[in-house]
Amino acid sequence: MEDYHKPDQQTLQALRNIANRLRINSIKATTAAGSGHPTSCCSVAEIMSVLFFHTMKYRYDDPRNFNNDRFIMSKGHAAPALYSMWVEAGFLKETELLSLCHVDSTMESHSTYKHQLMDLATGSIGQGLGVACGMAYTGKYFDRSSYRVYCLMGDGEMSEGAVWEAMSFASYYQLDNLVAIMDINRLGQCDSAPLQHHVEKYQKRCEAFGWHAIVVDGHSVEELCKALSQPRHQPTAIIAKTIKGKGIPGNQDKIGWHAKPLPKDMADMVIKDLQSRVTNSSKHLYPSTPIEDSPPVSLRNIRMPSAPSYKAGEKISTRKAYGMALAKLGRYNERVVALDGDTNNLTFSEIFKNEHPNRYVECYIAQQNMVSVAMGCAARERNLVFASTLASFFTRAYDQLRIAAISDSSINLCGSHCGLSTGEEGPSLMGLEDMAMFRAIPTATILYPSDGVSTEKAVELAACTKGVCYIRTSCQDSAIIYNSNEDFHVGQAKVVYQSKDDQVTVVAAGLTLHEALAAIQGISIVRVIDPFTIKPLDIKTIMDHTRATRGRILTVEDHYCEGGLGEAVSSAMVNESGFTVHRLAVSHIPRSGKPHELLKVYGIDRDAIIQGVRKMLSSSTNAK
Amino acid sequence: MEDYHKPDQQTLQALRNIANRLRINSIKATTAAGSGHPTSCCSVAEIMSVLFFHTMKYRYDDPRNFNNDRFIMSKGHAAPALYSMWVEAGFLKETELLSLCHVDSTMESHSTYKHQLMDLATGSIGQGLGVACGMAYTGKYFDRSSYRVYCLMGDGEMSEGAVWEAMSFASYYQLDNLVAIMDINRLGQCDSAPLQHHVEKYQKRCEAFGWHAIVVDGHSVEELCKALSQPRHQPTAIIAKTIKGKGIPGNQDKIGWHAKPLPKDMADMVIKDLQSRVTNSSKHLYPSTPIEDSPPVSLRNIRMPSAPSYKAGEKISTRKAYGMALAKLGRYNERVVALDGDTNNLTFSEIFKNEHPNRYVECYIAQQNMVSVAMGCAARERNLVFASTLASFFTRAYDQLRIAAISDSSINLCGSHCGLSTGEEGPSLMGLEDMAMFRAIPTATILYPSDGVSTEKAVELAACTKGVCYIRTSCQDSAIIYNSNEDFHVGQAKVVYQSKDDQVTVVAAGLTLHEALAAIQGISIVRVIDPFTIKPLDIKTIMDHTRATRGRILTVEDHYCEGGLGEAVSSAMVNESGFTVHRLAVSHIPRSGKPHELLKVYGIDRDAIIQGVRKMLSSSTNAK
Repeated sequence: MEDYHKPDQQTLQALRNIANRLRINSIKATTAAGSGHPTSCCSVAEIMSVLFFHTMKYRYDDPRNFNNDRFIMSKGHAAPALYSMWVEAGFLKETELLSLCHVDSTMESHSTYKHQLMDLATGSIGQGLGVACGMAYTGKYFDRSSYRVYCLMGDGEMSEGAVWEAMSFASYYQLDNLVAIMDINRLGQCDSAPLQHHVEKYQKRCEAFGWHAIVVDGHSVEELCKALSQPRHQPTAIIAKTIKGKGIPGNQDKIGWHAKPLPKDMADMVIKDLQSRVTNSSKHLYPSTPIEDSPPVSLRNIRMPSAPSYKAGEKISTRKAYGMALAKLGRYNERVVALDGDTNNLTFSEIFKNEHPNRYVECYIAQQNMVSVAMGCAARERNLVFASTLASFFTRAYDQLRIAAISDSSINLCGSHCGLSTGEEGPSLMGLEDMAMFRAIPTATILYPSDGVSTEKAVELAACTKGVCYIRTSCQDSAIIYNSNEDFHVGQAKVVYQSKDDQVTVVAAGLTLHEALAAIQGISIVRVIDPFTIKPLDIKTIMDHTRATRGRILTVEDHYCEGGLGEAVSSAMVNESGFTVHRLAVSHIPRSGKPHELLKVYGIDRDAIIQGVRKMLSSSTNAK
Repeated sequence: MEDYHKPDQQTLQALRNIANRLRINSIKATTAAGSGHPTSCCSVAEIMSVLFFHTMKYRYDDPRNFNNDRFIMSKGHAAPALYSMWVEAGFLKETELLSLCHVDSTMESHSTYKHQLMDLATGSIGQGLGVACGMAYTGKYFDRSSYRVYCLMGDGEMSEGAVWEAMSFASYYQLDNLVAIMDINRLGQCDSAPLQHHVEKYQKRCEAFGWHAIVVDGHSVEELCKALSQPRHQPTAIIAKTIKGKGIPGNQDKIGWHAKPLPKDMADMVIKDLQSRVTNSSKHLYPSTPIEDSPPVSLRNIRMPSAPSYKAGEKISTRKAYGMALAKLGRYNERVVALDGDTNNLTFSEIFKNEHPNRYVECYIAQQNMVSVAMGCAARERNLVFASTLASFFTRAYDQLRIAAISDSSINLCGSHCGLSTGEEGPSLMGLEDMAMFRAIPTATILYPSDGVSTEKAVELAACTKGVCYIRTSCQDSAIIYNSNEDFHVGQAKVVYQSKDDQVTVVAAGLTLHEALAAIQGISIVRVIDPFTIKPLDIKTIMDHTRATRGRILTVEDHYCEGGLGEAVSSAMVNESGFTVHRLAVSHIPRSGKPHELLKVYGIDRDAIIQGVRKMLSSSTNAK
């Protein structure tokens, strides 16, 4: 505290003026839009003003500079408050605010990546702190730089478990460059938040989770300046007691005004009143300039320096091949980092961890936070991130994955233990819906390698592919299929087996591809295709070859019937004439059991493929 | 504490004997299976022994009796410890344990519903406490009964945010009938848990979240008996410091033994040693009998007492119709309960809340916990549960939904604000992947009503349908389509418009159904089908009518292209000849904007339908 100098009165008044202008602009924008959350903007006005014009260091001529302090608006519904700060900082014109929520505007109700100033989208609340953790971890351990990370949160979102995952993470890694400002305005969407204005309870919770926690009056620029200037050895929580709708006489601290723009006449009256509080201060505030001590980083053209070194006849699981490939990739680029959630000896990210311990981030059993931290680490292209856990556990983070897509975030994920081959561990640990989940993410690429070589290629391709890349790996060892010099591309299938007299094309990946290859021993007249990527799917190759096998295609997948390979193929082929599609997939919740038993019971093994092929042959014989 | 009587020495020794027999049986079962988590069973041996033979009250002749105390094994990987207790209680034969993980055994690696003794499945950790909260809430507020709820948790899962959502919920509702026993054995899957053996940190966190927290030696039956006997006015956390692998000399407190059965020779040696510690006690312990003060409940044949009362020409959103229908259903059955996550004035569950305040459970912004609480409330058929929030926010609980299916839980969910019609609020609040998500849940039924009448029917049908029922509702008001006496069934589509000269069948639901009906004004030669349920899909009706329109079908959905209506239809029709399927769906991450603008921009509005129909007509003319 010794080095804290209270700002002079002129500065304090200028900060108050900025806060009130923020209120005015937020009200104007939301009233013009007929949508938005003006009362949620008003409670954070002083916080935003102090952050942007007293505390944070950033180049106002270069808002995305990687030396700048970061700001995450976790309570995304207060986006107009952020847009108003951009006006103050000169990034935006005041008139642009009036396009809020217009269909052709980059200023959306909740901030999204569409605006170039934004690191990440928010809107589904309770996610910002995890992202901020990823940025702060990067600042402290990877960049080793001076920039700080500020995350503004609402009290409603403090009920989200993901927040407490992030709180644990931040204190565990002593992220002393991270500051969370909690806007305790008491009111949620429908009613009061559970802890109301009991700031001491928030403080107790934050402290128990290892944070330094300071309670302030969130409308006092003096208190905010002071609290935000305190030196710290822990992550810091500024618990700001505020009034929702502060500055709007009619609805301060009133239930029923969440997400409601003010009617025009009310807005005019309130704006007039707020304008009268803005003094003609001659003092113009500028943000402080950041220290430029972040290293330059390039994530372009990341390639494996050599071809895979697997040999024919070798056996390895794709999960293990993933770990080996990632460690190899990490050998040639210092900014490849790996995250895992206490499953590194299952996903085999432990191979990376052992080789590059300083670039491995243990996220413990908190998958939501792991995905958010991945997004934070990847922001501003600081790191090339791979996060792994069991395929089934990514369901825990579907909302975060959805927001990653809306943020246009480039993160790579690997889900091991896909499907039935998880075996004895039972259905709760089998990822049988992961392809359905990732296919419905617009920016997602799904790589589903089937041997060591293609897994290494999948890791390399994921590294160079924008958006959310998902690599699906299996438990069981399987034989090497491809030569080391085989070329792989996103959206390019491989014909793994063919002969002159093929009658049916079988499309399968992962373990079921090996089952298909085993089926050839029993019924040789099949052509076998490995789709390699499920999204995008190489439907051209699949169709071309299916035509050559009299239009008969059998899809086999270690996944539920819905939303996976079979539906992707069916949807793409529905309008093509002369094709017959049969699908083998898991139709019920499976049991525990040995992998080969389960593949048999649920009908996706070698024998089921042989039977499926025979059925197709006999039914088309009958039909013709 | 005054009424606590320390058990006599014979009882204490008998409890120790049970604990060691548990160790023996868990080791035997997992070694025989070649799979499982013996070290995780050994750390909870004394806890389980004391719970089942000192603390809990249950009828050992009727393990699922609704007066019994409930037990949730949240650390599901210690399932063999639970099976061993069932042996002690006489529910199972000791030899049956040796079938653990066999493909035809009901004893799975992680407990699932397949065993009749189990209330709910576990396995994906960090979910048990939320379920326990639902049971405890039911016990305290709905049943108003004496039974208590005990939840055994691991320290690894304490990193999951869902745990802290449940901790908040329990203290907010003062669930003094809930006891969480935390097995702090220090070690996770790969390494130590983040808080190691710092039981005081766990205690501080629990207290900050409003719990009474007691630290004990988890291997001392005396301390456990005492702690579990304390009267309470808050939820209680027993923080039990334990040793992972306790009783297995070679791997006590050692990293690298998670999820590893002992080799046969090691198992034999350990079992011999453990057997030597089991004394020949003549004392046989029996569980205490529960007080039979729970009311009988019947959830059979729940029906609406009257037909819907909407009138032609009336306009109402399906979300509002949901709230009204639920309130109506609640009027005629005392065990209909509603949950929401601070969105009741958006989903309109507030109508139920206002009419039946004592049966409305506010879960705040913690969707994972809301789904778990719903499962807990629905367990043992105590309540008919409807939980609602925005469709997009159910992605937050995908893992819980997955476990609900594995648990064979019957819960009803309503997701409002589906798709683009959420408008200005932007993509983070639009549910555009919900159908893909729910379709890939094997036990799910998806109801997608399009007007007030069908919404009321959907609520009624959900009430009578087993499994996970999901009702998808929209924001915008729309006209009543159906007569009040229209009969609806799960899996039965409705033909909403047809004429003699129909050339194309349009399948659409929700707002897009209304767009299709509007399109008739522009192009009358279409037949319009409302699928009503997306899963199961009435493919017969759809195909029969499509045949009548020369095989042309156009699907229109307010959802991403993947995994929804269009793919469901395509997959079902892929092998039918003479059909042409065209699909209109959302192909990119949308923006904020007015609903009608967004429907236009992303091509699922009236004009897009007209254009789609024309295109189908012209292309088939060209082709023929």
